[in-house]
Amino acid sequence: MWTSSKLGEEVDRAGSLSPVSVIVGANQYGKSEVRMVAVDRTSDEHTFCDLNVGISLSGDLQDVHTTGDNANVVTTDTQKNTVFAFAKQAPVGEIEDFALRLGRHFVSEFEPIHRARVQIEATGWERIPVGGRPHAHSFTRAGGELRTATAVCDGQGEWVLSGIEDLLVLKTSGSEFHGYIKDPYTTLAETRERILCTAVAARWRHAHLDVDWGQSFAAARRLLLERFADLHSLSLQQSLYEMAKAVIEGESEIVEVRMSMPNRHHFLVDLSPFGLENDNEIFRVEDRPYGLIEASILRADAPPAGPAWDPYPLL
Amino acid sequence: MWTSSKLGEEVDRAGSLSPVSVIVGANQYGKSEVRMVAVDRTSDEHTFCDLNVGISLSGDLQDVHTTGDNANVVTTDTQKNTVFAFAKQAPVGEIEDFALRLGRHFVSEFEPIHRARVQIEATGWERIPVGGRPHAHSFTRAGGELRTATAVCDGQGEWVLSGIEDLLVLKTSGSEFHGYIKDPYTTLAETRERILCTAVAARWRHAHLDVDWGQSFAAARRLLLERFADLHSLSLQQSLYEMAKAVIEGESEIVEVRMSMPNRHHFLVDLSPFGLENDNEIFRVEDRPYGLIEASILRADAPPAGPAWDPYPLL
Amino acid sequence: MWTSSKLGEEVDRAGSLSPVSVIVGANQYGKSEVRMVAVDRTSDEHTFCDLNVGISLSGDLQDVHTTGDNANVVTTDTQKNTVFAFAKQAPVGEIEDFALRLGRHFVSEFEPIHRARVQIEATGWERIPVGGRPHAHSFTRAGGELRTATAVCDGQGEWVLSGIEDLLVLKTSGSEFHGYIKDPYTTLAETRERILCTAVAARWRHAHLDVDWGQSFAAARRLLLERFADLHSLSLQQSLYEMAKAVIEGESEIVEVRMSMPNRHHFLVDLSPFGLENDNEIFRVEDRPYGLIEASILRADAPPAGPAWDPYPLL
Amino acid sequence: MWTSSKLGEEVDRAGSLSPVSVIVGANQYGKSEVRMVAVDRTSDEHTFCDLNVGISLSGDLQDVHTTGDNANVVTTDTQKNTVFAFAKQAPVGEIEDFALRLGRHFVSEFEPIHRARVQIEATGWERIPVGGRPHAHSFTRAGGELRTATAVCDGQGEWVLSGIEDLLVLKTSGSEFHGYIKDPYTTLAETRERILCTAVAARWRHAHLDVDWGQSFAAARRLLLERFADLHSLSLQQSLYEMAKAVIEGESEIVEVRMSMPNRHHFLVDLSPFGLENDNEIFRVEDRPYGLIEASILRADAPPAGPAWDPYPLL
Repeated sequence: MWTSSKLGEEVDRAGSLSPVSVIVGANQYGKSEVRMVAVDRTSDEHTFCDLNVGISLSGDLQDVHTTGDNANVVTTDTQKNTVFAFAKQAPVGEIEDFALRLGRHFVSEFEPIHRARVQIEATGWERIPVGGRPHAHSFTRAGGELRTATAVCDGQGEWVLSGIEDLLVLKTSGSEFHGYIKDPYTTLAETRERILCTAVAARWRHAHLDVDWGQSFAAARRLLLERFADLHSLSLQQSLYEMAKAVIEGESEIVEVRMSMPNRHHFLVDLSPFGLENDNEIFRVEDRPYGLIEASILRADAPPAGPAWDPYPLL
Repeated sequence: MWTSSKLGEEVDRAGSLSPVSVIVGANQYGKSEVRMVAVDRTSDEHTFCDLNVGISLSGDLQDVHTTGDNANVVTTDTQKNTVFAFAKQAPVGEIEDFALRLGRHFVSEFEPIHRARVQIEATGWERIPVGGRPHAHSFTRAGGELRTATAVCDGQGEWVLSGIEDLLVLKTSGSEFHGYIKDPYTTLAETRERILCTAVAARWRHAHLDVDWGQSFAAARRLLLERFADLHSLSLQQSLYEMAKAVIEGESEIVEVRMSMPNRHHFLVDLSPFGLENDNEIFRVEDRPYGLIEASILRADAPPAGPAWDPYPLL
Repeated sequence: MWTSSKLGEEVDRAGSLSPVSVIVGANQYGKSEVRMVAVDRTSDEHTFCDLNVGISLSGDLQDVHTTGDNANVVTTDTQKNTVFAFAKQAPVGEIEDFALRLGRHFVSEFEPIHRARVQIEATGWERIPVGGRPHAHSFTRAGGELRTATAVCDGQGEWVLSGIEDLLVLKTSGSEFHGYIKDPYTTLAETRERILCTAVAARWRHAHLDVDWGQSFAAARRLLLERFADLHSLSLQQSLYEMAKAVIEGESEIVEVRMSMPNRHHFLVDLSPFGLENDNEIFRVEDRPYGLIEASILRADAPPAGPAWDPYPLL
Repeated sequence: MWTSSKLGEEVDRAGSLSPVSVIVGANQYGKSEVRMVAVDRTSDEHTFCDLNVGISLSGDLQDVHTTGDNANVVTTDTQKNTVFAFAKQAPVGEIEDFALRLGRHFVSEFEPIHRARVQIEATGWERIPVGGRPHAHSFTRAGGELRTATAVCDGQGEWVLSGIEDLLVLKTSGSEFHGYIKDPYTTLAETRERILCTAVAARWRHAHLDVDWGQSFAAARRLLLERFADLHSLSLQQSLYEMAKAVIEGESEIVEVRMSMPNRHHFLVDLSPFGLENDNEIFRVEDRPYGLIEASILRADAPPAGPAWDPYPLL
């Protein structure tokens, strides 16, 4: 439709052909996936944290979009540098605290920045045992899951989400599925015994910020696992609800849990062509398609969530 | 914290220790990533569509969560079957129309289902030329991008989003970045000439549903590419804004464009240790970290979006 | 056999321009990534294995390539079925034994099949503790690594490789790197202290097949980890060598270890622009590019490897 | 060299239990995935190449493994720097030529390095059309495939492989599969009409190095596509053979083609439960498991391949 890259013509064309008023709506920007390892060498027994930090800022950013005037832009490169410098200036500590430190910095130091969202994923490591004793500075990856934290800061308040991702769980028994709607497109057989397998992604919101984050996370993780294990499940939705409920009931500082659980389908293989019975023993695992169950479970008296759950990324 | 898997004790414990009322908030469920190819053989010149369909339903689903009563559940397996059967019962057509067909089905046929969100990704293919002529039934992948459509249906209304993903673009010139905030953590050098590279993800909303979807998509795609190309960019935010604005101004049925654009950083390599100058010629490409720019650009008079942009997935 | 509208021209052209004799060289085919879970319910304490099985067959397969005559083809679908049926007909047991059972079947039952390669990856799971006791049928993913086995069978012999993949390890101290070649393109600073991080992939060959596979794997894994931990490393090559050597010396049935270890670079962040020292504390982690170190370490008196290490995939 | 607190014990144990002689076998090391964009600004119509370069060296590297003496090590960091500097010192040109330039450098400049393998993947880009004219410096990704080149250099000779990866192709007709072996585990139905879909990975070897690489690649790519399209296929093996044969017959400088083609299964959906016929119209696409077909096709009089196909990576 256009042939020119010259600014003057551009303005002309816009003026004559497009009398619509185009505005900037919701927007945010920042540096994603700052991968940092910070080592604490104050003792011979080293410790370290292995983080993936994402920052997203919003505020008075109209002009950068409409005119390319960057006067209000804290560059994403500066955001990255800040992560590294902050990790040196004081111990990282719990990831919730580090996310808050970063978030407060951006909204307090830069007038045009009105809101900061900081998201952190932490990879777990454990000491390698050598001759029965944990090694002082050699480690191996602990589990396949990630611990996460999000802090949202604006002038008025601060919100923290804690969470876990890729926590794989599987039950070989204690899972049924029946009683659902049958329509002309329904072929699924009801079952009183199936494999239930999912990768738990959960994030939870707190009543206040005066939390022992490490203890709280460990308890929430344990409660999720225990309830998945000991619940006789009638649906993945029920498992989700009961797991979240266990966390809310067990940890008074947690007021809302949001979970996303894909149903990693394990289908019984039909062995009858080979003259074999399959008594819930042999399953093929399918990657796609998969059921996806998502819900927010919360205390009836939970305070408002503010911007804690605002979508990130936006799209 | 728990030691028992017996239902009775469970209830006891909950009763005595947890006098909190736990409720179900926002929730949705469905089948994700139904991969389907549907071939039209009505002519010797075959055509086909290659789709990845995701469905997400919400409604009267409290009991399935709290008691495991599945009476209101349209199973995700049935949802998958419906995709296949619908593709046979009538031509798939444009993906926006197919998403609407599916969405309307779920909200109209099942009383407990109050809202359906159907998302479709389409992979493009083009005929292989043989001896200068396009082959009748042999194809190769066209480009690396995906075309997307989303339909949201509830009792009251219908909303459609169209979009594109993984549209890679790069400029070797015509991109500057300067004038930003300098603070003690800023080390980035200002530049009047840099490589600008991004993977465009965009989704746009329509004023109404009486749209020639294929023509509209082609025009929006062309406008995005042309504006990226001919804009002399002062920031990735400005490029985003101008690209979205071009779509809104060029296609009157489109009232809002949301975009997410990672800054795929190309950094100048320092060749001075080797006695070489680097006059914007040699760049190393970094995967992480990356800037991420997200915004909604819309007509000032755009109608309300309803549930079109509600987060999916929820978490 | 052809449908080309220009068949004559094609043959002509081939006839006039290409009097070359084209033959089939090395070839193999089979089913890859058969994902199976097999549950043992003989006790209330369920056990299960979670496998990814790949099969590759070769033999008298010229005609299938040159004429499309499939008379000698055991279909990959049949191969998949065989995996499932075999898991039912007898307990899977150790993955090395299951790979051998499958490999022997294909070469003994099908005259045209002269060699079978069966590769298995096993995902580890561990019981979820509930109230301090391991649950009878609920599990969570154990670690991020995979245990692997390969069996190669032909008429003459059988070979088994055992292995491990994605075993992430990291040292915060005890790693130096210096004394290397300096040329005009060298800018790397020598260091007496760095983070060493890698994802160990290792496969090892056995002197014979009379091995307690489970015990042998556990010992090899422990030796790899211990040696990585307690070696003061002067290079990743040295670490690789010492780790493999520890396995060969510690487990007499293992005669060769092949390892591939990417150097997951952790680079010191330059904090001097911020007036901060970085005393080996703050590191940025880069994904690409990465060093890749690969070697075979073996007993001087190791028997010939036969086809054990033949490339798979071929390309 | 060690810091182990139990050095004595370690030596003791090794001494008493392991009187085996452990040696270093095949080994190689190098820098993988050097991502570089090199822009040619000599004309207003910019051109650029987008490369992913991997280098692997072998030679006199025993001591680095056994003692940690790095005197013979060209560091992988230096290898990376060399890629960038070479791209500045002379135009990159065809990727085969750039791979040869790099390979020759490492074996000629460093006495301990006896062999160099350089692998390059090139991502294709095309100019964005603006107002019908290709833009001078704005580009979008062309297709989803990669062009590849490998050069192997040692003191005695030089070998070059060219290739292509991720070339997706699909036929909606002209593909049969029948006449295969039926055994007790066979359930697959024979078919005279199916979808055939694969992602072609191919690499080819040349009779000599006096090749117009760009023209040769374009011709090979065209021949692969045309033969896939116009062959009425009786098996994926036959398609592979005929595609490779077309390349060898059509391009006299190419003497061997190796191909790896996964069978991306498209299975007919059973629509009979819904009272619908499925006349080869509706297919579900499965990711795993998949058939994998691999073969070398070559001229009967092809010269020896030397180290061209030596495994990389080793494991």
